[in-house]
Amino acid sequence: MLVVAERLNCTRKRIRAAVTERDAAVIQNEARSQAEAGGDVIDVNSATGVDTEVDDMKWMIEQVRAMTDKPISVDTTHAEAMRAGLELHGPGQAMLNSVTGERDRLAAMMPLAAEFQTRVVALAMDDSGMPETIDARLAAVETIVAEADKRGVKRENLYIDPLIRPVSTNPTHPSDCLETVRRIKAEFAPLKTIGGLSNVSFGLPRRNLLNRVFVAFMVEAGIDAGIIDPLEPGVMATICAAEALLNRDEFCMRYITAERDGRLE
Amino acid sequence: MLVVAERLNCTRKRIRAAVTERDAAVIQNEARSQAEAGGDVIDVNSATGVDTEVDDMKWMIEQVRAMTDKPISVDTTHAEAMRAGLELHGPGQAMLNSVTGERDRLAAMMPLAAEFQTRVVALAMDDSGMPETIDARLAAVETIVAEADKRGVKRENLYIDPLIRPVSTNPTHPSDCLETVRRIKAEFAPLKTIGGLSNVSFGLPRRNLLNRVFVAFMVEAGIDAGIIDPLEPGVMATICAAEALLNRDEFCMRYITAERDGRLE
Repeated sequence: MLVVAERLNCTRKRIRAAVTERDAAVIQNEARSQAEAGGDVIDVNSATGVDTEVDDMKWMIEQVRAMTDKPISVDTTHAEAMRAGLELHGPGQAMLNSVTGERDRLAAMMPLAAEFQTRVVALAMDDSGMPETIDARLAAVETIVAEADKRGVKRENLYIDPLIRPVSTNPTHPSDCLETVRRIKAEFAPLKTIGGLSNVSFGLPRRNLLNRVFVAFMVEAGIDAGIIDPLEPGVMATICAAEALLNRDEFCMRYITAERDGRLE
Repeated sequence: MLVVAERLNCTRKRIRAAVTERDAAVIQNEARSQAEAGGDVIDVNSATGVDTEVDDMKWMIEQVRAMTDKPISVDTTHAEAMRAGLELHGPGQAMLNSVTGERDRLAAMMPLAAEFQTRVVALAMDDSGMPETIDARLAAVETIVAEADKRGVKRENLYIDPLIRPVSTNPTHPSDCLETVRRIKAEFAPLKTIGGLSNVSFGLPRRNLLNRVFVAFMVEAGIDAGIIDPLEPGVMATICAAEALLNRDEFCMRYITAERDGRLE
């Protein structure tokens, strides 16, 4: 599973403060520690405000680039900040995070995805709002795929996010999301799938326990990528164990190596 | 998921010694602590030797009955010990552990299952040996079901065990077993499914990590029962979290209660 490391997000108070104060050490340390913990792609969310976001995105990407060459997930709804981020990205395939099936968002983002040949996180929702059913998610996927085809974004670059929401608010959401992943893999190849982990346990105690179990479910369902905190205890170890158990780790060599390197603690 | 607690097994040196020496405290403590940890059924395996097994089964069941009224899984290949165990069982529905699709084993055990109206653990293998494929497992299930029908054992009392073996010896076994569970639930209703946890991680480091991930997979696949050690750290908590995430725990109340009672540690 491709790990998109989620900690550099300006909706988090500590990150937002560091960005506003241009505290490079905080951002650089987060970039480095996430890369070392196994993040394959470093997400950079610059949601500080309409007027500041372009400059903040540029500055954040510079800090990440000072620490790692790993691809970046440029995470903003602000088209100008998105372009600025993609222009600064450098070698490697960027991830555009995100489009939806909403008309305005597709129009703003898909041309950038095509121009920069990025991977694309595409949320399975459209102008009818947050999806309540599997079919509503798949309808949004149809819209997104049609637009991608029209704009010249390759289908294999689309990572569909089924929008995992807290089990505490709707008990069927997590299983619906797993089923959506299975159906996209079966019916929409070569589309890829992606999912966030941080929402599912919201509002319940012992969130880490729920997150670890749910990330195992995501791997089993065949999800291609996860938007996760690779520093959350046990999460990377769980992914490693899940892949070993599911014959996605030849001779369990990655698992055994991780154990030797102390990365299963 | 129904939890069949597996620790009282004479293939374990400590248990065998306690049985041979008639050390009632060891057996009684194991029975009590497993029941308290959430075991729904207490397995009693008396494999001490052909000549001793009948007496040992009787004695073990007496020790368990001194501590708990929970149903017992009478676990032996010895028909006389099986009968002795079932006769001593008392109120509640016993579990006969186990039959296979092998002709001799069916002939020895199915009449007892019918006579005592037990639940039955039925291993998905037959006279052609240990199954290497999903189809081989399902072929054995056909044989077992036919014999159950003939003998008057209700199909809903059959718990099919897909024979989970170490991922270290064959990398496709764990995923084949999950798929077998899904197919039995889909194609063989009202048959039930059951699986053991202790084998899957054999030969690999950090077995507890693998066991916790695999028990989550088992719950997600819809398995009806697990043969597990309820005292293994994190295993019962993982089952509880998995059921909460999969809408099998209304309003997550069992999960929340378990947390309040300190049972998610």
